Amino acid sequence: MSEQHTDVSSMGEFGLIHHLTKNIDIQNVSTILGVGDDAAVIDHFGKQTVITTDLLLEGVHFDLSYTPLKHLGYKSVVVNVSDIYAMNAIPTQITLSIGLSNRFSLEALEEFYEGVYAACDQYGVDLVGGDTCTSKKGFVISVTAIGEVAPDKYVKRSGAKKGDLLCCTGDLGAAYVGLLFLEREKRIFLESPGVQPDLEGEAYVIGRLLKPEARKDIIQFLADSDIQPTSMMDISDGLSSEILHICEQSGVGCQIYEEKIPVSEDMKAAAYKFEIDPTACALSGGEDYELLFTLPQSEYDKLVLNEQISVIGYMTEASEGAHIITKGGNKHAITAQGWNAFKNR
Amino acid sequence: MSEQHTDVSSMGEFGLIHHLTKNIDIQNVSTILGVGDDAAVIDHFGKQTVITTDLLLEGVHFDLSYTPLKHLGYKSVVVNVSDIYAMNAIPTQITLSIGLSNRFSLEALEEFYEGVYAACDQYGVDLVGGDTCTSKKGFVISVTAIGEVAPDKYVKRSGAKKGDLLCCTGDLGAAYVGLLFLEREKRIFLESPGVQPDLEGEAYVIGRLLKPEARKDIIQFLADSDIQPTSMMDISDGLSSEILHICEQSGVGCQIYEEKIPVSEDMKAAAYKFEIDPTACALSGGEDYELLFTLPQSEYDKLVLNEQISVIGYMTEASEGAHIITKGGNKHAITAQGWNAFKNR
Repeated sequence: MSEQHTDVSSMGEFGLIHHLTKNIDIQNVSTILGVGDDAAVIDHFGKQTVITTDLLLEGVHFDLSYTPLKHLGYKSVVVNVSDIYAMNAIPTQITLSIGLSNRFSLEALEEFYEGVYAACDQYGVDLVGGDTCTSKKGFVISVTAIGEVAPDKYVKRSGAKKGDLLCCTGDLGAAYVGLLFLEREKRIFLESPGVQPDLEGEAYVIGRLLKPEARKDIIQFLADSDIQPTSMMDISDGLSSEILHICEQSGVGCQIYEEKIPVSEDMKAAAYKFEIDPTACALSGGEDYELLFTLPQSEYDKLVLNEQISVIGYMTEASEGAHIITKGGNKHAITAQGWNAFKNR
Repeated sequence: MSEQHTDVSSMGEFGLIHHLTKNIDIQNVSTILGVGDDAAVIDHFGKQTVITTDLLLEGVHFDLSYTPLKHLGYKSVVVNVSDIYAMNAIPTQITLSIGLSNRFSLEALEEFYEGVYAACDQYGVDLVGGDTCTSKKGFVISVTAIGEVAPDKYVKRSGAKKGDLLCCTGDLGAAYVGLLFLEREKRIFLESPGVQPDLEGEAYVIGRLLKPEARKDIIQFLADSDIQPTSMMDISDGLSSEILHICEQSGVGCQIYEEKIPVSEDMKAAAYKFEIDPTACALSGGEDYELLFTLPQSEYDKLVLNEQISVIGYMTEASEGAHIITKGGNKHAITAQGWNAFKNR
């Protein structure tokens, strides 16, 4: 946090909102009216509007003891635009509501907004509204994202067909290992406040947790390549959990291959330090914000040019269930442990 | 709260969302895809989209010791659709995110959702998405409302002109007096838990606080009467504060008349019990969710048929400031005490 400390409550709600939003630069022609009225006005003539929302609560979704506020602001936007991309849509506007306790200074809030605006800039979205209020305890963040998509080009979770290829983007599991490092360093710090954190060499996995990116590039690639996925979602709760959602909502089964699951060398090395299996991190870690999608086998040739896309398996009849073939050749049912299973809550 | 107690955490997030949303009945043809995917899809072809959001926090915006959950659910929707109406738009969809602590049972949450659905039904909006998560402390509610308006028919706060009439709907100040009663009974209860609450005869003012309504009827009337207000907003922070917003954003002043401010007999009687001035309640009370709007004097004839609309004054040059003429003929500057001034925070 910054050294200066301006008391937020001294500014009043309207003064505060004005201060934080006065430099907004509108990026979308569809943004007709932004911050400053009862509501924003958006014009998506000829397109369909996509909307999603996420609530982020201190102590549940983030820990301010190791989360820089600027990163938190950035991530708050990213997790929502990721949901818009997961519909095969382009994010255009967000609203942001925050509840904050007195311990927040204006300077701290400005850091948070710096991250919000950096993400707005990165993803081309306009901040068009919101609400700022006092919270009795803890920092509360609620973001709603709006996007647009050409009529009926949106992609649901429920359209996967038997025989479709199952693909995911980027690499998986790193955010979870990043969390393990930060939680470990926090414990050490609380026990021995003098000890300096030892995060040497873990920049990649920690970065994946604190500053994730949404896959704007993939949605652009799919459009450029004229690929319409049959189903899609983003990977926020872990690969296993998301695969089971697609299987359930599409009424299909699937078979995936452990050796095909993309993991980074940095994540593998980091996972071994904790003596955990990198594949388990990829399957159940969550918070990767990569995309998971299915498409007909006939589209395979179009994928090969994109190194960011991995084909990890294919869809089967629902009656065959959802399975993973391990590197050793064994077949296991995929179970939705998700993120929480690791957290020992 | 209900007597049954089903542990919400036993259901998992997806089970819980499914349970609470399984009976949704879609009311708008523009709702193409609702709850259950990464985002909802909305089709407002040929109209503009209006969006607003509000965060409601336990202990700040509501007190569960005297707020029935069903009413709270209803009000959470109403305060947002009120903002949509204040743009001269029609609400069509909402998203709802909630954070809840372990003390909430499924039955309590069902009561809350009963209120949400009752309001959705009343205002013709579809619940199309949201997020449900654990909160470490306190109940967190975030609602985003979407609406539609014919191209460029939306009404901002900034269009009031010198000479325009200033109008408000319904009656003002009752919600604030209702709050005084409930806060008094809570204090008495905490001091002497055996004493039964004495709210006899205060049904109107308490109802105005706990179950406000948004002015759907007025927006319909304005459309039917072919009236396009020059500025409009809803009265959530108190009449004074909202008048000053319109003056500031429109670059005008105003003169209003105390005797023209609509107050109910029930509110007056209740205010006298607390030995406070009913006009002060109307000016600074807040949470009325009535509409405040301006329109050219030439439209006056169209208004007279609607008893729910009061002309309380007119707009002047900005240099003349914002004033109220009291019943005694004195002229005072209007100041924005707002809701908070009463709360002794």
